[in-house]
Amino acid sequence: MALTVVGSIAFDSVRTPFGARDRMLGGSAVHFALAASFFTDVRVVGPVGDDFGAEQLEVLEARGVATDDIEHVPGGETFFWRGHYDHDMNVAHTDDTQLNVFADFAPKLSPASREAQMLFLGNIQPDLQRDVRRQSSAAYAALDSMNLWIETTRDALVAAIAEIDCLLLNDAELRMLTGEPNLVVAARAAMQLGPRAVVAKRGEYGAALFTPEGSFAIPGLPLEEVRDPTGAGDSFAGGFLGSLNDARAGGDHDEAALRRAMAFGSAMASFNVEDFGTERVRNLTESEIGERLAEFKRLTHFDAARVPA
Amino acid sequence: MALTVVGSIAFDSVRTPFGARDRMLGGSAVHFALAASFFTDVRVVGPVGDDFGAEQLEVLEARGVATDDIEHVPGGETFFWRGHYDHDMNVAHTDDTQLNVFADFAPKLSPASREAQMLFLGNIQPDLQRDVRRQSSAAYAALDSMNLWIETTRDALVAAIAEIDCLLLNDAELRMLTGEPNLVVAARAAMQLGPRAVVAKRGEYGAALFTPEGSFAIPGLPLEEVRDPTGAGDSFAGGFLGSLNDARAGGDHDEAALRRAMAFGSAMASFNVEDFGTERVRNLTESEIGERLAEFKRLTHFDAARVPA
Repeated sequence: MALTVVGSIAFDSVRTPFGARDRMLGGSAVHFALAASFFTDVRVVGPVGDDFGAEQLEVLEARGVATDDIEHVPGGETFFWRGHYDHDMNVAHTDDTQLNVFADFAPKLSPASREAQMLFLGNIQPDLQRDVRRQSSAAYAALDSMNLWIETTRDALVAAIAEIDCLLLNDAELRMLTGEPNLVVAARAAMQLGPRAVVAKRGEYGAALFTPEGSFAIPGLPLEEVRDPTGAGDSFAGGFLGSLNDARAGGDHDEAALRRAMAFGSAMASFNVEDFGTERVRNLTESEIGERLAEFKRLTHFDAARVPA
Repeated sequence: MALTVVGSIAFDSVRTPFGARDRMLGGSAVHFALAASFFTDVRVVGPVGDDFGAEQLEVLEARGVATDDIEHVPGGETFFWRGHYDHDMNVAHTDDTQLNVFADFAPKLSPASREAQMLFLGNIQPDLQRDVRRQSSAAYAALDSMNLWIETTRDALVAAIAEIDCLLLNDAELRMLTGEPNLVVAARAAMQLGPRAVVAKRGEYGAALFTPEGSFAIPGLPLEEVRDPTGAGDSFAGGFLGSLNDARAGGDHDEAALRRAMAFGSAMASFNVEDFGTERVRNLTESEIGERLAEFKRLTHFDAARVPA
């Protein structure tokens, strides 16, 4: 079972109240791939420049991620983002964005990447997402996007959404996409566009899942240390889709599998924010993930019976 | 088992995208009392004016709420609030507040109200909350407050919090009270002030509970129809404390009872917002509450095992 992810590969310079890092490895495809690598084989598709070298590749390869579809653009520079967070760590303030090689990215999937059973279309221009979807023979495809594409290329985004199985957006984006202020109504309207499942990401408040069978919600894990939230949404998506594509679980996409995937996604996002960039997730162990999942189980457990049996 | 609540009794004029109502029965003590009345005997302490009559009393008495400590101030007018909600139903816009008889409120508890096993100090001036706490012999007391008192009478509020067992605030207020941006750290700092349990209310995102044993979180129920959120926090508190004081559950205040109480609180808040003012909660049935609790159980259920047993 393999999972192909197309998205950004980046250098991030980040400052938070808890420290700062210069030119860390980042980008949606990187955060996604590292999180998903604990569940399934992952293949990364994305462009890098001359400044991207063996040290960065090694971070991915150490987790078994296939990097042969990472496209090196000679003479180019890798996508760069500089940002900071103040005390409200829910809000990222962008100080600089340099698209660099990402500006002319035309994704080209190798046969191995085309044949992966699952595809994740990270947050890139929606026409590129459609192009990638057509190159892929994945049985299951999911997509992330952002306010920029909803505002500037809505028709292309709606067309891309029509061709996927699962849509992941944050709740404000879901409302913006559908024009529906009520989240349940917005999720149903998004399902009308095509996908059978809609995930609303809610930052520190967790995430909600909507399917034709009903809704599921999981709160965020209350964490004492949140050092850098950059990439949390991508780590969520990586844990979510990685777990859905986990051969050990049979690769089911039914309601029970989707709910378990929401918990794994939440677990990976909770690790992501505990340290800068990829520092926490890339050093995780299987047993830490299992313990974190049990922590989510304890966090949300209540006994509805007034008189315990 | 009885529960005394001290707080506002009001007329509310509310406009939302889904309709409007003029001079509905409202106020923190009223919303709290109606929600709690499904679990325990409730006694309301609060002032009303000449405009408050048999029709309003009947709403409370029909639910078995004891109204003999509702103080009629001759020649006075009842507290009045006018507000509206736009499409973001999380934000109340206040258009008019008339304190009226509430401005000179000096709570006086009858012997029956003093002797209730549980006390809820609704959101009133913190010196009044302390005064009421001293009149009461309740074994368990909880308190709600708001940004106004944190900003203007912080010392009195901290003194009031030192004398109670459970603090309920929304998460922004908890951060403001303690000066801690991280919710877990803020909750721990609040516990240092005295209470053994701290509840962070999070509007549509649900609520979190912090105790020395750890944390619990419950998401909000994704509702298709939210007609009027006024009073949802008070209905939450009523379901939460009412359920803790429920003789059928033995009146335990342990971790399991607190978690179950969080679910009952969430259920009552979810009913509250489905219609204007008290219209939904006052007409509820026991079986609707049981079904709603089961709905929360389904909403949050996931099976952590990758391969189902």
